[in-house]
Amino acid sequence: MKAVRLHEIGGPQNLRIDSIDTPEPRTGEILVRIRAAAFNRRDVYITQGLYPRIELPRTLGSDGAGVVAAVGEDVANVNVGEEVVIDPMIGWGDDPQVWRSDATILGMPRDGTFAEYVVVPRENVYRKPKPLSINEAAAIPLAGLTAYRATFTRGELQAGETVLIPGIGGGVQTFVLLFAKYIGARTIVTSGSDEKLERARTLGADITINYNATPDWHKDLRKAGPIDLVVDSSGGDTLSKAIGVLRPGGRVVIYGGTRPESTFKLFPFFWNHIDIRGTSMGSPQDFAGMLRVFETGVKPAIDRVYAFDEAVAAAERMAQSEQFGKIVLDGVP
Amino acid sequence: MKAVRLHEIGGPQNLRIDSIDTPEPRTGEILVRIRAAAFNRRDVYITQGLYPRIELPRTLGSDGAGVVAAVGEDVANVNVGEEVVIDPMIGWGDDPQVWRSDATILGMPRDGTFAEYVVVPRENVYRKPKPLSINEAAAIPLAGLTAYRATFTRGELQAGETVLIPGIGGGVQTFVLLFAKYIGARTIVTSGSDEKLERARTLGADITINYNATPDWHKDLRKAGPIDLVVDSSGGDTLSKAIGVLRPGGRVVIYGGTRPESTFKLFPFFWNHIDIRGTSMGSPQDFAGMLRVFETGVKPAIDRVYAFDEAVAAAERMAQSEQFGKIVLDGVP
Repeated sequence: MKAVRLHEIGGPQNLRIDSIDTPEPRTGEILVRIRAAAFNRRDVYITQGLYPRIELPRTLGSDGAGVVAAVGEDVANVNVGEEVVIDPMIGWGDDPQVWRSDATILGMPRDGTFAEYVVVPRENVYRKPKPLSINEAAAIPLAGLTAYRATFTRGELQAGETVLIPGIGGGVQTFVLLFAKYIGARTIVTSGSDEKLERARTLGADITINYNATPDWHKDLRKAGPIDLVVDSSGGDTLSKAIGVLRPGGRVVIYGGTRPESTFKLFPFFWNHIDIRGTSMGSPQDFAGMLRVFETGVKPAIDRVYAFDEAVAAAERMAQSEQFGKIVLDGVP
Repeated sequence: MKAVRLHEIGGPQNLRIDSIDTPEPRTGEILVRIRAAAFNRRDVYITQGLYPRIELPRTLGSDGAGVVAAVGEDVANVNVGEEVVIDPMIGWGDDPQVWRSDATILGMPRDGTFAEYVVVPRENVYRKPKPLSINEAAAIPLAGLTAYRATFTRGELQAGETVLIPGIGGGVQTFVLLFAKYIGARTIVTSGSDEKLERARTLGADITINYNATPDWHKDLRKAGPIDLVVDSSGGDTLSKAIGVLRPGGRVVIYGGTRPESTFKLFPFFWNHIDIRGTSMGSPQDFAGMLRVFETGVKPAIDRVYAFDEAVAAAERMAQSEQFGKIVLDGVP
């Protein structure tokens, strides 16, 4: 089968399309014929060596949807030919609050979805939400799971509350916007790009702010009414700004960081009884809850669809952070 | 009446014992004859000008216990002569999660407990827990309230869990140790003083660490089993160390900060689903819960008892951070 593989650290241009043996499902596993896959920032970080426990060569890709091709022993209630979407969180474990220390993410160290076939544990295979196309289903797994947990399980966002989503455009932030609108929350998004803000408005963003045009946006926000939740992954001083705009008792959820450290002023933090909550990926309960949202007709934001052979170009677009929504690989041979 | 008042910013030595008019309770207020009071770091910060909204001259003091001397109109169920302890949190409001924006703390801007008499709202007066002496009752209000909320309401400490209490000796940290032992949690305390560690052991500390003798104490702690909660007020890089020793899914509660900012590494924070929770003072529910602990016979740690006339010396000891437990003012004239 064809697979998009990384042989050497050095950036997205090091990805190659190889011909390798089609894997076989063992006991408790399912072989999925991939019809569409999608990129996450994680894939780019791996090509750049910015990820723990990299083993090479390996097929990348955490997001995928397709049809069941074969099942291993002890796998019930799944039919060959069924359309499915894959939960990329492998081995979360029994505690909904936190994953097991040996949990991993599909696509490193385990071979991932940028291939004709992938083998995954039975419990990671879910029926595709009916309203979604295969491309749409492939766009949701990792970022949708992360955003669902950040917004609801960790962020506890309620209808009528207001959420601030800094830096709209990336996969997770776009899903946070969708989920917040889905439950009837008010949304404030920021970006340095008017084009991305315009797209956010079409997805229902209530207030849009270009942070290049208004560097003191966090001060202006105090006039926009109480903010209950901030969902962020930028690190640096964004956390201090977030704490400065939150209502007393408000929450910040952080699901990643493009900078290694974050600094914040202590006084407004403890004086206002703020919570800062870390999160990463999500539990099986989170994944199932996320799929239920998409059963209602909510659609993921797709930036661009590339053919399987254009995987390197797709990864390079991902690396440039110019996308709004998900970058999908389709036409898997 | 006699009162310990601050006329000018400049440190504890600026406190003076004045003779001023005895206040009178208005509608909904109670006049309490103070029998004992106690110091908090807040009192020292105020003398140094390190506190918002300072109005001078003012009688300092947040902690006090005594007897009801007179009641204003519309005050029921309180008898003159009854022994009481005062909740220094004025006007918390109806939301147990967070205080009202106009809430204040007794002792600034409102005249406080370092006096023969103090007037407080009716809802701030509670019956003294029976097992406590007046001096012991005076030692618990502000630090006990802060510690109770940090440990239970915000920290959610459970029996059988392990809590790390860095920098034992100050009022709040000592109460956290008492409360943790009270519910049957395992406790780890740190200090730069072997004498304070020895006193902590007499209060039930299970593991004691001198951070001057073992600068890499946070690395050694990883061998001590999972740590569920850290309660801290030091800021700086203690937060990063705390995150490094917590079990996945663990909590840090911060109730103050001796440094203005805190910095932490993002990756271990979000990867391990950590919570960082800010807190300050406590709700009426927290105060009532705290008193219930002392009804069972738990005793606060008292560092030293000073006579009312020695208030300046007492404040200077507080400023030096050499105490273990509370510094009490007794013999109020």
